[in-house]
Amino acid sequence: MGMKLGIIGYGGMGYWHGEYAPRAGVDVVAAYDVDPKRLEMAKENGIKAYVILDDFLKHDGMDFVVIATPNDVHKELAIKAMNAGKHVMVEKPATMSVADWDEMVAESEKTSRILTVHQNRRWDKDYNVMRKVVEEGKIGDVLSIESRVFGTGGAFFGWRSFTKYGGGMIFDWGVHLFDQLLDMYSDTKVTNVYSKLMTVLDQKVDDYFKVILTLDNGTLLHVEVGTYAFHKLPRWYVIGNEGTLQIDDFDCEKGGYTKPSYTDTPVAEVVVMTSAGPTRMMAPRPPETKEDFPLPELETDWTELYQNLVGVMAGKEDLIVKPYQVRRVLTLMEAIFQSAEENRSLEVSI
Amino acid sequence: MGMKLGIIGYGGMGYWHGEYAPRAGVDVVAAYDVDPKRLEMAKENGIKAYVILDDFLKHDGMDFVVIATPNDVHKELAIKAMNAGKHVMVEKPATMSVADWDEMVAESEKTSRILTVHQNRRWDKDYNVMRKVVEEGKIGDVLSIESRVFGTGGAFFGWRSFTKYGGGMIFDWGVHLFDQLLDMYSDTKVTNVYSKLMTVLDQKVDDYFKVILTLDNGTLLHVEVGTYAFHKLPRWYVIGNEGTLQIDDFDCEKGGYTKPSYTDTPVAEVVVMTSAGPTRMMAPRPPETKEDFPLPELETDWTELYQNLVGVMAGKEDLIVKPYQVRRVLTLMEAIFQSAEENRSLEVSI
Repeated sequence: MGMKLGIIGYGGMGYWHGEYAPRAGVDVVAAYDVDPKRLEMAKENGIKAYVILDDFLKHDGMDFVVIATPNDVHKELAIKAMNAGKHVMVEKPATMSVADWDEMVAESEKTSRILTVHQNRRWDKDYNVMRKVVEEGKIGDVLSIESRVFGTGGAFFGWRSFTKYGGGMIFDWGVHLFDQLLDMYSDTKVTNVYSKLMTVLDQKVDDYFKVILTLDNGTLLHVEVGTYAFHKLPRWYVIGNEGTLQIDDFDCEKGGYTKPSYTDTPVAEVVVMTSAGPTRMMAPRPPETKEDFPLPELETDWTELYQNLVGVMAGKEDLIVKPYQVRRVLTLMEAIFQSAEENRSLEVSI
Repeated sequence: MGMKLGIIGYGGMGYWHGEYAPRAGVDVVAAYDVDPKRLEMAKENGIKAYVILDDFLKHDGMDFVVIATPNDVHKELAIKAMNAGKHVMVEKPATMSVADWDEMVAESEKTSRILTVHQNRRWDKDYNVMRKVVEEGKIGDVLSIESRVFGTGGAFFGWRSFTKYGGGMIFDWGVHLFDQLLDMYSDTKVTNVYSKLMTVLDQKVDDYFKVILTLDNGTLLHVEVGTYAFHKLPRWYVIGNEGTLQIDDFDCEKGGYTKPSYTDTPVAEVVVMTSAGPTRMMAPRPPETKEDFPLPELETDWTELYQNLVGVMAGKEDLIVKPYQVRRVLTLMEAIFQSAEENRSLEVSI
């Protein structure tokens, strides 16, 4: 038993789904778009192309659709597809408000159709390496996890530069980074949200943000995205009470974690003269008192997301990206927008 | 005309003053301490040693004292010294509350004695290099300045691990980092304070903090100190709307700033496959579209602080570290403690 997939919106991400779903054994059968040029490209890739949505939804045997359109029309399209009997995966963000998502979930329950979101970055290698080091307690109790994605693209492409279509970096990259951390802390509430949304270039949407979340266990989650940052800070930076983890980039080629190599509480007794001036606390630690460890080796595979959907359709697996998790991320993003708008931290229970 | 300096508290920093004040032509004549071992050390360094404060304050010709004791007794000692006719410089933090500082300033005005604080890090090279790049507009309008000092010392030495003596990292390193940024933004108000104080090791005082200040022009100042961080993030990281600055460490040996090398607004038209997946915004920028610049060369000299005091005594210079600036830093630190205690951001006007 497989999956016959249709793609709504054959743009950048729609094309990508057409390329990578087949690697999970998915049969990509049809595409719908409003742009004749994109439909031409679909045809060239052996996909039946539709310019009329109702015709697309009647494509013979198609049982699943992925929706990769601007964010403002996810809800309408998802509801229509579920009503036509299709299971649905929408691109992230699922939609632009919790209220809209609740309508979509209600439709999913009414029609008994699968509804999920393409949170593929739960399978990112860097995230899973960070999570493994932390969850195996390699650096002790974690005080602070910093998750950063910095690029230099600057201005946004197409609809992503407009608020009404759901543009901006909270919706574009933030949604992935929040989903990763909330999935990691699925049993822990976010109790406080503080966010700063800014525009580096003079745009209508956020192209730079800094978000600090406090968990009920006291751990800080610091998430930052910059679109015009010509020097990079590490993708992950984690402070534990027994060590520090750094992962420089998505590929995990640079990074590692470092721990003190003895168990006594270190107290620097001597004032050392450094380029920082006389200091005990910031003096370099003698090499023999610390130990460096490489990042663990692991492989991840984005196609597992599609494999999971095939398994769910066959009644053999539970859905990995669950509606209540999607709702939690959307709830958090609403708090983030509110915190930035009101220029204050918010007490929450998310 | 010179300065005859006495040192109250001949510990780590007191010793340091004895070593570096002479480089500014200052004559170090006397030291007071409660610890006979430290007094012995003073004697060996050719400094007259006193175990009784009143005797110390009567030392012939001594016109200036520096106070390098635990923070909780700065006020009492400073007032006593000013009453005995001495000009006073206290170690940082000046004292532990704005109210205490106001008492000290009132005494300074009553006795017409100089009262200042050893904010020597205004002369740190890294700070001045950062400030020069920013103030010369090299990276355009600044959105965010991040100032970090990370070390691995862990537990605190002596009185610095106790709240009642004014221990903890806000008072120890924070006071320098806030003083630097408030001096840089002397005409701009801080309008919002958000802070998180934590303990990495199980201590009674903050040994890790993250503070985010918002200025009334919208710029973010992000200040962070970690005492058990085995990987370092850059000392300075600044995002401007025309480039990014990074300074790795106090010595300024690594770092630089990078700008786009053309004036058109860049819009990435092409989806690029990276280890981050398909992306426009986070795709690597072609090398020919950006330009790297080295950090400017400049030299700074901590002895200028003492030279300034000699100049002030001679009526030839204005005091550089001014009481109202010290008060502003203390006001900010009170807001930082309050924000952390109440777990919320505070609207302020500092």
